[in-house]
Amino acid sequence: MIKLNENAHVSTENGWQIFEKEYDAKQSINSGSNYLLGNGYLGYRGTFAENTKEDYTACIVTDTFDMADGKWRELSNVPNGLYTTLTSNGIFYALDVTGYNNYEKKLDFKDALLKRKTTYKDGLSLNTEKYSSMHEKHLLAMSYEVSTINEKTLSIKTGIDGDVWSINGDHFQLKETSIEDSMLISHVKTKEYGTDIYVVEHHSFSHQGSKEETIQEESSIFKSLSFDLGANETLTLTKYVAIYTSNDSEQPKEDAIQLIKNTINKGYDKNKEEHVEAWHDLWQAYDIKANGNIEAQTLIRFNLYHNIIATPRHKKHPIGARGLSCQAYQGAAFWDQEIFNMPMFLYSTPEVARNILEYRYDTIYGARKKAKDLGYDGAFYAWISGKTGEELCPDYFFKNVLTGRKIRNHFNIWQIHISPDITYAISKYYQATEDWEFIENFGAEIVFDVAKFIESRVHFNDFKGYYEVIRVLGPDEWHENVDNNTFTNYQCKFALEEALEFYKQFKNRNNEELTSLMKDLNISNERIEKWQKIAEKLFIHEPNQETLLIEQFDGFFKLEDITPEKLSNRLIDEEEYWGWPNGIAVATQVSKQADLVQLLVMHDHLYDQEIVKNNYYYYEKRCKHGSSLSPAMHAIIASRIGDEEEALKYFYTSSTVDLFSTNEAVVGGTFIGGIHTAAAGAVWQVLVHGFSGISFRDDSIEINPRIPEAFDSLEFNITFKNQHFHLNVFNDIVFIESLKSNTRDLDFVINGSKHNIRKHSSNKIPS
Amino acid sequence: MIKLNENAHVSTENGWQIFEKEYDAKQSINSGSNYLLGNGYLGYRGTFAENTKEDYTACIVTDTFDMADGKWRELSNVPNGLYTTLTSNGIFYALDVTGYNNYEKKLDFKDALLKRKTTYKDGLSLNTEKYSSMHEKHLLAMSYEVSTINEKTLSIKTGIDGDVWSINGDHFQLKETSIEDSMLISHVKTKEYGTDIYVVEHHSFSHQGSKEETIQEESSIFKSLSFDLGANETLTLTKYVAIYTSNDSEQPKEDAIQLIKNTINKGYDKNKEEHVEAWHDLWQAYDIKANGNIEAQTLIRFNLYHNIIATPRHKKHPIGARGLSCQAYQGAAFWDQEIFNMPMFLYSTPEVARNILEYRYDTIYGARKKAKDLGYDGAFYAWISGKTGEELCPDYFFKNVLTGRKIRNHFNIWQIHISPDITYAISKYYQATEDWEFIENFGAEIVFDVAKFIESRVHFNDFKGYYEVIRVLGPDEWHENVDNNTFTNYQCKFALEEALEFYKQFKNRNNEELTSLMKDLNISNERIEKWQKIAEKLFIHEPNQETLLIEQFDGFFKLEDITPEKLSNRLIDEEEYWGWPNGIAVATQVSKQADLVQLLVMHDHLYDQEIVKNNYYYYEKRCKHGSSLSPAMHAIIASRIGDEEEALKYFYTSSTVDLFSTNEAVVGGTFIGGIHTAAAGAVWQVLVHGFSGISFRDDSIEINPRIPEAFDSLEFNITFKNQHFHLNVFNDIVFIESLKSNTRDLDFVINGSKHNIRKHSSNKIPS
Repeated sequence: MIKLNENAHVSTENGWQIFEKEYDAKQSINSGSNYLLGNGYLGYRGTFAENTKEDYTACIVTDTFDMADGKWRELSNVPNGLYTTLTSNGIFYALDVTGYNNYEKKLDFKDALLKRKTTYKDGLSLNTEKYSSMHEKHLLAMSYEVSTINEKTLSIKTGIDGDVWSINGDHFQLKETSIEDSMLISHVKTKEYGTDIYVVEHHSFSHQGSKEETIQEESSIFKSLSFDLGANETLTLTKYVAIYTSNDSEQPKEDAIQLIKNTINKGYDKNKEEHVEAWHDLWQAYDIKANGNIEAQTLIRFNLYHNIIATPRHKKHPIGARGLSCQAYQGAAFWDQEIFNMPMFLYSTPEVARNILEYRYDTIYGARKKAKDLGYDGAFYAWISGKTGEELCPDYFFKNVLTGRKIRNHFNIWQIHISPDITYAISKYYQATEDWEFIENFGAEIVFDVAKFIESRVHFNDFKGYYEVIRVLGPDEWHENVDNNTFTNYQCKFALEEALEFYKQFKNRNNEELTSLMKDLNISNERIEKWQKIAEKLFIHEPNQETLLIEQFDGFFKLEDITPEKLSNRLIDEEEYWGWPNGIAVATQVSKQADLVQLLVMHDHLYDQEIVKNNYYYYEKRCKHGSSLSPAMHAIIASRIGDEEEALKYFYTSSTVDLFSTNEAVVGGTFIGGIHTAAAGAVWQVLVHGFSGISFRDDSIEINPRIPEAFDSLEFNITFKNQHFHLNVFNDIVFIESLKSNTRDLDFVINGSKHNIRKHSSNKIPS
Repeated sequence: MIKLNENAHVSTENGWQIFEKEYDAKQSINSGSNYLLGNGYLGYRGTFAENTKEDYTACIVTDTFDMADGKWRELSNVPNGLYTTLTSNGIFYALDVTGYNNYEKKLDFKDALLKRKTTYKDGLSLNTEKYSSMHEKHLLAMSYEVSTINEKTLSIKTGIDGDVWSINGDHFQLKETSIEDSMLISHVKTKEYGTDIYVVEHHSFSHQGSKEETIQEESSIFKSLSFDLGANETLTLTKYVAIYTSNDSEQPKEDAIQLIKNTINKGYDKNKEEHVEAWHDLWQAYDIKANGNIEAQTLIRFNLYHNIIATPRHKKHPIGARGLSCQAYQGAAFWDQEIFNMPMFLYSTPEVARNILEYRYDTIYGARKKAKDLGYDGAFYAWISGKTGEELCPDYFFKNVLTGRKIRNHFNIWQIHISPDITYAISKYYQATEDWEFIENFGAEIVFDVAKFIESRVHFNDFKGYYEVIRVLGPDEWHENVDNNTFTNYQCKFALEEALEFYKQFKNRNNEELTSLMKDLNISNERIEKWQKIAEKLFIHEPNQETLLIEQFDGFFKLEDITPEKLSNRLIDEEEYWGWPNGIAVATQVSKQADLVQLLVMHDHLYDQEIVKNNYYYYEKRCKHGSSLSPAMHAIIASRIGDEEEALKYFYTSSTVDLFSTNEAVVGGTFIGGIHTAAAGAVWQVLVHGFSGISFRDDSIEINPRIPEAFDSLEFNITFKNQHFHLNVFNDIVFIESLKSNTRDLDFVINGSKHNIRKHSSNKIPS
């Protein structure tokens, strides 16, 4: 047993699990997120069977967006079908009520099982096992075993708890319960779109009860069973819960009932086996072995696990900024999805990346509407994107805790880099997959419409002789209303160049398709020339000739130069927002996250090492890491410039942002807990782009290993150009195996030397 | 005696004076401003001889700008040479200390004399008379008479009180006092520029004293005289104070001493006579008789008086937003100077208007520097302009009273209309005077450099096909960071058109001069074409076809529509700033002052009556009049659209903003009291442009009388095209006298009928 953290009480055995042996009520919100179960369709928080909304228990389901309070549209938390309590002579068996002798909560990543063992002081033991099936996305299952060292009269209440926690209003206009074929059924209907949600529960006991009761309420329905349990006897309760919505199926209720029937027929073990096998397949694709470091190994798998379960694989739904771990950030997609979550999928299972991008195609209507409403052309993607792609980000996001007044933040209208970020992701997807069919049918339309948006958003400054991008927020959200933000301008330039590149490819390949698309999108030859001109004349801050520093935006270097530590002394209240309009960081160079570092990660060929180094050290000192997106990017660049100490520090910061969370999960009355899925996805990038030094080029894979001493090697699979490779990266040797399914050779450039890796070959290359 | 206001205890006898007979300590700050003496060189607050800095006594002198606190540059308050106290057996004769039987403070406008009479309860009477000479700008004088009904031993302390009030730091690096030739001398030196200031005092008593003492301190110097005053005897103290600075003269001390000597030689009566005669000449030029309404007459003269004394006539110095009534707003010029103060001078004594505009020429260096520092071309005038024209407006102007944090307002960098406003004033000056010599030597350079600034400040929006002006504040300062502000855009367009017009005139008149100027200013033919193009394609919000409403800026009509009254309920603290960034007005249509109303005043030919009416009523309802500039503009437009009731209401509001002031003079710890000189200047505009309906056209004067019933007629002199006219405007008849000095005929268009007014003729024209 290796303790990962004293305060958070997290341990591992062998890097394939986390567990805790002490119950800490103060950590229960974070723990509920960290031990989350999920499969991309639903997320079920790692709370206990007896927990309720007071304990932030939740089962969040994709595609159930609803706006109940007139302001925030968010995913629904559906009735909790695994709810189960145990009592005996007035004793309620819960960790914070009844003292325990032994306790363990364990999340096994490999099998994706959540286990809980408690031995209460009175000799009663409770062992549970839960999973949300990766094989059958609509299914939750639980095995609940009770035993006792001395005879007891027990009462179990189990069923569906419909009294759910919701951050922004009650989402259900209708709530009803029923019983059919000994299944408990909860039916709710969302307020805005009238989505029907069915939660169908079935349970069975290994023993007959002495007394059975049905408790039926408007939104909850339970069975209560009383029974005598003899000394050293074990009672097992087996529960299956099927969840379907009218967005999943035309007959959600029937489908849910049928799924329960099928599940009963298969039995608990078989269902579990299918689930576990599905997970083993996923690990085959995504696992990264950190040889020689079990602690780091655990952190890695924790993050890969969470990136996997946050990501819908079954359908084209957004990846929430908190995944399906709760309703925070509305269950909706930010740029995080393409830039932080997607790379792991793109270079492992590109079909999942395509799913993500097709979601953007499906929601282009919303992006076009947003552009038009704001007086622009083309597609201006939502900063917070739900089902339709319409903007979910409210005008007032934060509030001033000193005055109680809400703050008008402008993420929704000024943070324009979201659009070129999607072009960037499409470009990376096409580079990695050469999937022209996707470009032709989906990608090009997005890329062209993003270019149209940029065209309408830039301004030519006659006096200065260049195009400007005025009034934006870059990734550093504490500086709103800035001009010529280097990150944003570069992304815009890149997006225009990509549009021109795809246009060229269309011309080369299939003129008819192009003609039709150009006509549909109203793209003339003049427009193509215009894009060319803008791309050429779009202003980008150059590195200063002496300092090599690149300015974050116009006038950034004139802002007050102060460290985040000193600046924080100006806080009047710990919970104050640091950014717009008058937060303590606004008039300073202190950033929430460092735009330039982000740019250097995303465009790793742009500047030479000296420039990268100078900018890293300049901006790093001034970065508060007020965003969970920030540390991983710093780890990658620190690694690239050979600062192993910093790289490792930021790797640990990034990979433990949730696991060791000392953050408050509730700030200013708002729940902002949950899993930081972008940070989860970014850990993959730190390992592959950072420590392993891998860059994907148009015709090769570059590897410049910089494995920290703390690891022996990093070992993982990579998919590129439809070729699959098993890599084991040491600092002095890189093992490359071209897998059996491969169809062609591929060049690898290792520390500058080109190696042609033949298909189906195993290679050991000194680096 | 006509009481003008119950609470402010202000009365008049015949419209040529204000007086109070009750002393109200709470009004003493406002009273000190309202009873201000001045002559455009200095302002001496209408406090009492015995008052000190605790009573906001001040003598503010032009051209003494100094920055003592590193943030605010402001005029200096110089040592108080009229300081005099009276004591008797431990009784200190002051209004708030010793009870009085009779009291009167009176400001006589005609003679510009401030008189004070007090009879204390113990039978002692004090009569004083003060003036700041309009004939000799460096001179202050006081006659101080004490009498008593029963014999008393009295002590008078008189001299120079150097312990002065200053808003932003102590401005003097050196303070010294001396006595020469029985003159008391105070010498101070400012911190920033080392300006030497000399205050030289001389006093004489009508009686010999029993005991004389000299009290000499670092910055103060007094004589103390004790004497016995018999029953019904009167003692007279006569004081002269001369003030010179090293900016006025190379030998300021000698000049001050010489002035005192000359003054003594002439004697009190002669000096006073010269002062009074100078004032009678001014009233000849500026007075407006409101026949039939003594109350309104008093308000009018109060405002004309303050506009006169705020305005430097002797040199090209800025007119302060609070004149010389205190240091508030730094003693510096805003757009108020050209748009609010100047018109009265322009159409009465155009040489004073030229003075004002030459000040802008003298400070063009600062405007060019500001433009360059911010990345623009040409001349971007300071929002707050002092001696050099460099920007005096600090980044942080207001503070958030709820949090104590200072607010980054952007008056200094976004309120760009100041530059075209100056072009507007030059255009009006040229129209009124045909003074080509001024244009050739001063005006054109400003106008061309303003055009260059605008050229570099606008952006062409390809997508929309027009030029935009992005990120500005219009006159309504509660809405910062707005685009295509109608007022600003129209002013920019107008300023470009004027530049083109002057260019054309140059070409017609004198090609050599033009060639040289164009070369100096780097103005090519292409640039002239560019200005033409920008002027043509600069976006201006058009009146909506149905509502006829003109939008204040992009998106204004989408802001929350609420009345100022309802909105004010959202205040947490009465002193909160309503504007940027998160004040209660920001996200609403409530304005500090109504941009559109201002535009309609300044460009009275732009829209027809229906459009004017609809816009007036729309914007008036949503205007909080948070600026003293606002009510007068509303009075003018209300008058124009025939709403006499509203017009009169706003006339009274505007003309009493200081006189009846119920405002707090100290807000958030900052003194913002003092005379609102723009409102003073605007009252002239209400009477001439509003009630008399006078518009100055290129070749005529239009008169459309709309004299409110509250007046019989308005009678005043007007100068236009170097011709002088005496007008008496009734609603049904206009009397026009072309004065003897005139050299030509001029067309008057009265209610649409053209009348050629022959030189030296008297005309009675039915309207």
